[in-house]
Amino acid sequence: MSFTTNATIASFGGKLLKLSHEAKSTNCTMGLNLYLPPQAEKGKVPVLFYLSGLTCTGDNCAEKGFFQHKASEKGIAVVYPDTSPRGLNVEGEDESYDFGTGAGFYVDATREPWNKGYNMYSYITSELPSALFDAFSDKLDADRVSLTGHSMGGHGALTIFLRNPGKYKSCSAFAPIANPINAPWGQKAFKGYFGEEDKGKWKEHDATELVKKWPKEQTLDLLIDVGTGDNFYKQGQLLPENFVDAAKEAGVADKVKLRFQPDYDHSYYFMASFADEHVEYAAKFLEA
Amino acid sequence: MSFTTNATIASFGGKLLKLSHEAKSTNCTMGLNLYLPPQAEKGKVPVLFYLSGLTCTGDNCAEKGFFQHKASEKGIAVVYPDTSPRGLNVEGEDESYDFGTGAGFYVDATREPWNKGYNMYSYITSELPSALFDAFSDKLDADRVSLTGHSMGGHGALTIFLRNPGKYKSCSAFAPIANPINAPWGQKAFKGYFGEEDKGKWKEHDATELVKKWPKEQTLDLLIDVGTGDNFYKQGQLLPENFVDAAKEAGVADKVKLRFQPDYDHSYYFMASFADEHVEYAAKFLEA
Repeated sequence: MSFTTNATIASFGGKLLKLSHEAKSTNCTMGLNLYLPPQAEKGKVPVLFYLSGLTCTGDNCAEKGFFQHKASEKGIAVVYPDTSPRGLNVEGEDESYDFGTGAGFYVDATREPWNKGYNMYSYITSELPSALFDAFSDKLDADRVSLTGHSMGGHGALTIFLRNPGKYKSCSAFAPIANPINAPWGQKAFKGYFGEEDKGKWKEHDATELVKKWPKEQTLDLLIDVGTGDNFYKQGQLLPENFVDAAKEAGVADKVKLRFQPDYDHSYYFMASFADEHVEYAAKFLEA
Repeated sequence: MSFTTNATIASFGGKLLKLSHEAKSTNCTMGLNLYLPPQAEKGKVPVLFYLSGLTCTGDNCAEKGFFQHKASEKGIAVVYPDTSPRGLNVEGEDESYDFGTGAGFYVDATREPWNKGYNMYSYITSELPSALFDAFSDKLDADRVSLTGHSMGGHGALTIFLRNPGKYKSCSAFAPIANPINAPWGQKAFKGYFGEEDKGKWKEHDATELVKKWPKEQTLDLLIDVGTGDNFYKQGQLLPENFVDAAKEAGVADKVKLRFQPDYDHSYYFMASFADEHVEYAAKFLEA
């Protein structure tokens, strides 16, 4: 369960640790980045998980997302996990950018051969945090954890948050795949990881379906940004309106804030531009 | 002299333009990034040139340096030029990372065959700004220009500033090659671009030599950051102390601020961490 620290990089007054560890759920060595703000030198800090999108590793956002800027000020640790197992030698895992390697979709696969290690749901919700809170028990506060993410990682953040009411302090998303069962990316992934028969399983990992089951007595407070220049939004891969409509129908949309940001695309330039605001949003709930 | 706009990307409330143009001085098509802050929609804004280091293009810092963050707030345009001509087919130009392609060193080569287009001094000080101020005459203020840069680009910023007293409003640098005639990178480059005989020419592009000639009646105000974890600093490639010593001997060191930043390395994580401060520093002089 212990981590290897492959590099320690000074960043915004804190340290970015390039870590790796042997993960049981994904059946391979997993790499990740952990940003420790300067406040972590003096005690436990809350933690924001940033879940990345298709093709990414934990490196992209650590380099290009600008989350450390505000996290350093607010005293929040940021975890940048990888997006899939690596090197499992599952046939076909490297054939496309939107399935297999780099495209774990934050689910536990039920279909052979993907169930061999494509278990990113268990990895992100259980194994990775357990390992981190164990190894960094003096620095990371296991009771104050929030989620954010981009695209496939926005889907991951929303679905993990919605499946676990009360577990996470807050959730925000950039250009999330908000209704994957009705979008090409999601359909391809769920067909591959779950098969075509069990559509109930698909719905268990669809934010638009999950929000219908959100407990009404619990406030649902979400921040979602989508760029109007985002080609994947235009192509119907994201469908954030479906999510908001479902939240409204379920009577839990009061604090679901969907913002359309003029001209922004799907790139890290978009996340960087609003990273400060998403960290500030998380900080409110993390009391950082 | 006109530019092709290959992409327009929303960034921190402004626009990042991915431009290219035919450059005479470098004898090829040159790519660059131009960040226009939101204030450029309403009138002329001052301009900060960011000169990149070895191996980089104008893309690296636009993606990972986060100068746009504070430039957007202050209303400063940022120009990210390339670091050398591309595709000249000069024999040997692609053989090493620290000479030729990606390593123009902001000089005009005098030696064959490099003088065919390795004229980054003329390109950066004359052709590029002329073309930009012509093409963006309603947005960029030619009378308010500052310089910054990293490593080889820090050398570029310092030497261009020091060779042209009064032309630029301010200059700062990250981990600059501050005394190239005494450092392996600089010696290799100057030998290649100028030959070994004319050491006078070498000194014309060495910040430590140039500072000795700075006009005493003119205040020399410079901000230089170097990370103490920077391996190139440790290897003697940067030699910032030589520069400061020379400035002291010349009696112009009063406002030369060299800061050693604990643990920071030579990467973009370093620039990103202090980009806000360097833009704020430039803003003071640009009155932005």
